[in-house]
Amino acid sequence: MRALVYTGPGAIVWQDVPAPTIQKPTDAIVKVETTTICGTDLHIIKGDVPTVEPGRILGHEGVGVVTEVGAAVTEIAVGDRVIISCISACGKCSYCLEGMYSHCLADEGASGIGWILGHLIDGTQAEYVRVPFAETSLHKVPEGVAPEEAAMISDILPTGHEIGIKYGAVKPGDVVAVIGAGPVGLAAMTTAALYGPSRVIAIDIDANRVEQAKRFGASDGVVSTDSDWKEQVLALTDGLGVDVAIEAVGVPATWDMSLAIVRPGGHVANVGVHGKPVSFPLETAWIQNLTITTGLVNTDTARMLIKMLAQGRLDVAGFISHRFALEDIMNAYDTFGRAAETKALKVILTA
Amino acid sequence: MRALVYTGPGAIVWQDVPAPTIQKPTDAIVKVETTTICGTDLHIIKGDVPTVEPGRILGHEGVGVVTEVGAAVTEIAVGDRVIISCISACGKCSYCLEGMYSHCLADEGASGIGWILGHLIDGTQAEYVRVPFAETSLHKVPEGVAPEEAAMISDILPTGHEIGIKYGAVKPGDVVAVIGAGPVGLAAMTTAALYGPSRVIAIDIDANRVEQAKRFGASDGVVSTDSDWKEQVLALTDGLGVDVAIEAVGVPATWDMSLAIVRPGGHVANVGVHGKPVSFPLETAWIQNLTITTGLVNTDTARMLIKMLAQGRLDVAGFISHRFALEDIMNAYDTFGRAAETKALKVILTA
Amino acid sequence: MRALVYTGPGAIVWQDVPAPTIQKPTDAIVKVETTTICGTDLHIIKGDVPTVEPGRILGHEGVGVVTEVGAAVTEIAVGDRVIISCISACGKCSYCLEGMYSHCLADEGASGIGWILGHLIDGTQAEYVRVPFAETSLHKVPEGVAPEEAAMISDILPTGHEIGIKYGAVKPGDVVAVIGAGPVGLAAMTTAALYGPSRVIAIDIDANRVEQAKRFGASDGVVSTDSDWKEQVLALTDGLGVDVAIEAVGVPATWDMSLAIVRPGGHVANVGVHGKPVSFPLETAWIQNLTITTGLVNTDTARMLIKMLAQGRLDVAGFISHRFALEDIMNAYDTFGRAAETKALKVILTA
Amino acid sequence: MRALVYTGPGAIVWQDVPAPTIQKPTDAIVKVETTTICGTDLHIIKGDVPTVEPGRILGHEGVGVVTEVGAAVTEIAVGDRVIISCISACGKCSYCLEGMYSHCLADEGASGIGWILGHLIDGTQAEYVRVPFAETSLHKVPEGVAPEEAAMISDILPTGHEIGIKYGAVKPGDVVAVIGAGPVGLAAMTTAALYGPSRVIAIDIDANRVEQAKRFGASDGVVSTDSDWKEQVLALTDGLGVDVAIEAVGVPATWDMSLAIVRPGGHVANVGVHGKPVSFPLETAWIQNLTITTGLVNTDTARMLIKMLAQGRLDVAGFISHRFALEDIMNAYDTFGRAAETKALKVILTA
Repeated sequence: MRALVYTGPGAIVWQDVPAPTIQKPTDAIVKVETTTICGTDLHIIKGDVPTVEPGRILGHEGVGVVTEVGAAVTEIAVGDRVIISCISACGKCSYCLEGMYSHCLADEGASGIGWILGHLIDGTQAEYVRVPFAETSLHKVPEGVAPEEAAMISDILPTGHEIGIKYGAVKPGDVVAVIGAGPVGLAAMTTAALYGPSRVIAIDIDANRVEQAKRFGASDGVVSTDSDWKEQVLALTDGLGVDVAIEAVGVPATWDMSLAIVRPGGHVANVGVHGKPVSFPLETAWIQNLTITTGLVNTDTARMLIKMLAQGRLDVAGFISHRFALEDIMNAYDTFGRAAETKALKVILTA
Repeated sequence: MRALVYTGPGAIVWQDVPAPTIQKPTDAIVKVETTTICGTDLHIIKGDVPTVEPGRILGHEGVGVVTEVGAAVTEIAVGDRVIISCISACGKCSYCLEGMYSHCLADEGASGIGWILGHLIDGTQAEYVRVPFAETSLHKVPEGVAPEEAAMISDILPTGHEIGIKYGAVKPGDVVAVIGAGPVGLAAMTTAALYGPSRVIAIDIDANRVEQAKRFGASDGVVSTDSDWKEQVLALTDGLGVDVAIEAVGVPATWDMSLAIVRPGGHVANVGVHGKPVSFPLETAWIQNLTITTGLVNTDTARMLIKMLAQGRLDVAGFISHRFALEDIMNAYDTFGRAAETKALKVILTA
Repeated sequence: MRALVYTGPGAIVWQDVPAPTIQKPTDAIVKVETTTICGTDLHIIKGDVPTVEPGRILGHEGVGVVTEVGAAVTEIAVGDRVIISCISACGKCSYCLEGMYSHCLADEGASGIGWILGHLIDGTQAEYVRVPFAETSLHKVPEGVAPEEAAMISDILPTGHEIGIKYGAVKPGDVVAVIGAGPVGLAAMTTAALYGPSRVIAIDIDANRVEQAKRFGASDGVVSTDSDWKEQVLALTDGLGVDVAIEAVGVPATWDMSLAIVRPGGHVANVGVHGKPVSFPLETAWIQNLTITTGLVNTDTARMLIKMLAQGRLDVAGFISHRFALEDIMNAYDTFGRAAETKALKVILTA
Repeated sequence: MRALVYTGPGAIVWQDVPAPTIQKPTDAIVKVETTTICGTDLHIIKGDVPTVEPGRILGHEGVGVVTEVGAAVTEIAVGDRVIISCISACGKCSYCLEGMYSHCLADEGASGIGWILGHLIDGTQAEYVRVPFAETSLHKVPEGVAPEEAAMISDILPTGHEIGIKYGAVKPGDVVAVIGAGPVGLAAMTTAALYGPSRVIAIDIDANRVEQAKRFGASDGVVSTDSDWKEQVLALTDGLGVDVAIEAVGVPATWDMSLAIVRPGGHVANVGVHGKPVSFPLETAWIQNLTITTGLVNTDTARMLIKMLAQGRLDVAGFISHRFALEDIMNAYDTFGRAAETKALKVILTA
C-alpha cells in the first residue's frame, strides 16, 4: 500500500510500504477513507519529537472502514465505518479504568502513553492502518454524519473540549478567553457553548483569525499585537480578569498572557504543546487561588461529541479549509505547513 | 493598651498604643485571650511584605471575648468567646458569595484582599483588636474546646486543609506527599485523614521533623537530603508517583520536588509563600495531565473544623510547642524565630 | 398605598393598606414598578397554603426602585433599580453560608424558610414592599435589561434552572425530558441550553403547549394523552430512557411518568408543588441507581442568570404573554387563572 | 464437582454437578477457596427473586485461584489469587465506560444487568466457578491480605461504600445515620470513616447490634424501638436532622424513618432491597431540597478498597462471625438464616 513515511528530520515521503496485519487478538485493520494533518505532524517532521523514529508512517486522525479484526474483537465488525481515536487505550489498566486514556499503561511497543499512532507505531496517513485495542480505540460513525466531519472527533474536537473547556472548568456565566485561534483553539471555542459561557474571547496575533473565530463561537475578539490588548480583555470582564484562560499556542509569551488576564480564583488550561520551560511567578501567584491544568487528550468525551454531531448540535463543517486526494498528501502538507498564508485549518485527505 | 508594633524592617516593639474602637456598624472589638505567631509575621519583620507599613500591630490569629459590637451586628454578642479568622470577609461581594473569602472585594482601607488583620489594619498581637465584618469573620468557640486549641482554627488548620488537601483534591486511597513538615505542612497531614488517603508521606530536610510528623498523621517519612529521596517516595507508590504533592515550604527547590514526584494525572497543591518565580517545565508537563493550584486560605471550612474539634475528631494539641504570657511576646518571637533550634511549632500567647 | 390582599380562601381584594416602613436595619423599601403572578398565588387563594393568613399582601416576584434603606444597608442605595428575589436570605446562617437560601434560618416572623414574601410577610403585589435582608435579597438590574424581563429572575428562571436543570445534573449530550410545559417547565427548557443537552423533550397534556415549547428550547415534543407517549419518548433516546426527567406539574400521575421514562443511572428532578404523597416503587427502583431530587429555589444562580440576560445570552421575552396596569390586577388574576383558555404564561403588571 | 444448588422455592441442595468450562474467550475458571452467603441468597431461596431458575448454583462472593483462562484474557493468569466481584462487567458498553458496571449491557444469557453470578448464571458456592469478562470482573489479591478478608470486597464493602456513603455524598463534618446494623449497614459505617464525618449514628431495632456497631465505626447508637428514637437522633444533630440518612434494611418503616430524620438539604441513600412500594410524602418533601438515591453496587471502588486493605487502613476482620468448611455449607446456611439468634454477620466457607 501507499503511505506517508517520516524518514528523518525534515523529510517525509509518500511511498510503497507493506500493508499492516493483525498482530494481537485485540487489533483491527481499518481502510482509511479520510485522514488529516495535525500541527503535531509538523513538529515531528522538524525533528522536535525524538521518540518518532525514521520509517514511521505519520498520522493519528481519520475515518475508515474495518477490513479485519482480531480474534478477541466482538464489538467492532468488518464493514463498520469508524472514527480512529488519536489515543489507543487498552480499557483495562488503572488509568483507562479512570477514563484517563492518555496515560494508558498497556505495553504496546516501547510505550506507556495513549498517543501511539503515527508516533510509536504506524499511523493513519496511509491506505490501511492497524489499530490496537480496537474496541476501546474506535468509535462507530452514526448515520448521517459525513466522514470528513467525523474525522474532527479523532483529535481536534476532544482536545479543545477536554483539555481546554473541561479542564478549564467552564461553567454557566463564565468569561472565557482562548489564546490562539488555530484549529485546537477554535475547537475549544466551539465546544465552550456546551457550558453556557457569557463571553468567549478569541485572542490571536492575526486579526483575520480573530475575526474568523466568531464563526466558531467567539463572542468577542482581541488582536494581541495591540499594545492595549490586555486592557481590551479586562474591559470585557468586570475588571478583575477572565474566569478561564485557555492557552492554545504553546510558547512562553502566550503562557504569560494567560496568567496576565486570569482573575483571582480563575483557571488557566494549557492546551498548547510547549518546547521549553516557562517562568511561573509564584511570588505573586501563590496568593491568587489559581488552578492550572495541562494535558494530552483522553478522548473520553468522543462518544458525547459524536452524539452531538449526529443530533446536529455541533457544527464542525467550518474546520475544513482544504480538501485533497490522499495520494496528493505532499501538496496537502505544503498547504497546511504554510497555514498563515493559505489560511489552512484542517486539510482533508480522501482516499 | 499594650501591643506588638512593627516599626520597620527588622524592628518590633511591645508598647502602649491606643485601644481600638468601633469604626463601622459591622465591626466588633475583641479582648484577646490567646494569640500566636505565624511564619508570615517573620516575613513581615524581615521587610518582605512591603504592604505592611511601620506602626502596624501584627498578628492575624487568636481567640478572645467580644467586648463591643457595631450597630449592625446581631449574630455576635458582647461576651461571646470567638475565634478570629485570619481572613476578614464582607459576606456580600461576588467573591464572598462564592465562599472565596480570601479575595473579598470590600474596601476596608487600601485593601481588596481578605487577609487584612496585622497586614493592612491592626492585628491580634495586642490586648484588644477591632475585627471588621464581625459576623462573617468571627466564629463562636463551642463548649469544651480550649481557647488555645481553637486558635489553631484562625489560620493554620484551614490553610493546610483548604489549600493543601481540598485544592489537592485528596480522595480515598490516594498517596499524598507533603513537602515541608512545619506547622502548615503538619496541618495538611492532620486534615488529610478526613479524606481517606492510603498513605501520607512527610518529606522534610530535617529527620527530626520527619519523625515528628508521624504524630500528625503521616504514615511514612522521607528525609529530602537523602540522595535517593525521590526513589524512596516512588517506592511508596505503585512506581508512577504520588496522587497529590503538597508544597508547604515556598522555595524553588521544593516546587521542583513536587513536580518530580507527582504522577501523570496528579495534583500539585502549592501552599508555600514564595518570594521568587519558579521554572515550570511545560515542555514535559504539557502532556502530564497535571492540576496545579495555589491559594490564600478562605477559612470557609473553619466551621466544619470547629465542629470536628468539638466532637473530638480532630486533635490539635500537638501543634502547641511553647506557651508564653502575652506581655512576654518578645521572647516568644525569639523562640519562634529560632524554630530549627527550639523545635517550635506554634507558640501560644495568653493574656 | 394600594395592594392585593388575600382575605381568606377564595378571596382577594385590591385595596388601600398602610405603606410599609423600615422595621430592621437590614430592610429596604422598594417602590414596585413591575410584578407578576405565580401559580403558587393561585394555590394560596384556593386555601391550599394554610401558613398564609388572611390580610396578607400576595406576591413574591417583581422589580422596582429602592426608596429607603435601613441603617445597616450599604450595598444597596436609594434609587437603585432592583430585582426582588422570591427568597429572603440573611446571608449569615449555616444554610445561607452554603448557598441554600431556601432554608435560611433567620427568624423573620414565624419563619425559618427563605420564601416569606407574600407568604409570611407582605409581598410585592402592591405599590411598595418591605424587603428584609435587602443586601442579600435584592439584585441590581444591569443597564439594558428591561424591568419586565428582569422580573423573570425573581422566581421562575432560577426555579427552572436550579431545581430542574442543576438538581437534575444535566450535562453535555444528555437527553432531558420536561414534563409540564407551563412557565416553570419552560424555564427549565430555556436554561437547559446552558448545559449542552443533545435533546430537550417537552411533554404536556396540551398539544399547543408542546408545540409552543419549541420556542423555549425544546427540540422535541410528546403529547402525553397519546397512548404511546412513553414509546415516543423512548424512541428519542437509545431505548433505555432519558438521562434526566424533570417533573414540573405536581401531581402523582406526572411523578409516575418521570419514573417510567428515566434510564437506570438517571435523574428525576421534582420541581412541581405537590399536594399529596406519591407511591415510590422501591421494589423495582432500588436496583436502578436513580437520583431523585426535590427543592424550593435558592436563587443562588440569579446573579449568573442576570449576567446572561445582560449579555443577550438568555431570551426571556417569550415568557410574557399578557400585560396589565398594576391597578388592573384583578383582571390579571382572572386571565392568569384561566391559563388553559387564555394561553397565559406570565402576566406582567406595571405600576 | 460439588455445589450448592437452588432447586426451587424453599429448597437448596449440596450436590454433584458438572464442573464449569470456558465458554467465551473472555471467561476464566476460578477454583473457589473462600466464599460466603449474602442476605440476597436467603431472598432467592424464599422464592422472592423469580429470575433465579431452579438448578442455579447460588453465590456471588468469593476468593479463589484462577485455573483456566479464555483466549482473550491477558491481564489475569492461571495461578492468580483473585477476588470475584459480585458484578460481572464487560468493560466496553456505555454503562461500563462510565463505571456504572451494575447496568452492564452485555448480553450474557438473558441478562442486561451486572449481577449475574448466582442469579442468571451459576455462582460461587461451588468448588469451581466460571467468571465472564474475567479481566474486568476479577481483582488480584495483594500480598498480605487474607482470602477471607478479601472476600469482603466481593460485595459487602463496596455496597456499603458506594450505595451508602458515596451516593449519600458524605463529606467532612457530616452527621450520618445508618438505619440497619446488619452486614451492609456495618459496611457503610466502616467506610464512612474515609470521608471524615463528625458522627456516625447506628440505628437498629436490636440493642445488641447497636452496641456492636461501635466496633465498626459508629460513634453513637439509637435503638429504634425506643419511643423517642427520633428525638434521640435529632439531639445528636443541631436539631435540624442528619446530613445523610442511609437506609440499609429494605422495608417501608425504615424508609419512613430515613425521611423523618434527614435535614432540609440532606441526602437519603437507599441501600436496602425492597419488596414493595413505599409512600413518598412529596406534599412536604417537595420543599425540602432532598436528594434520594437508590442503587445496585458497581464495585468500581473495589480497587481502592483493596488498596486500603493492603495498606492496613481498613479493618474488616470483625465482619466474619462464623467459619465453616465449604462442604458444610448447609449448616452455614442454617446459622446465617437464624442471624438474630446466632448473631451471624458474615459466615466464611473455606474449601
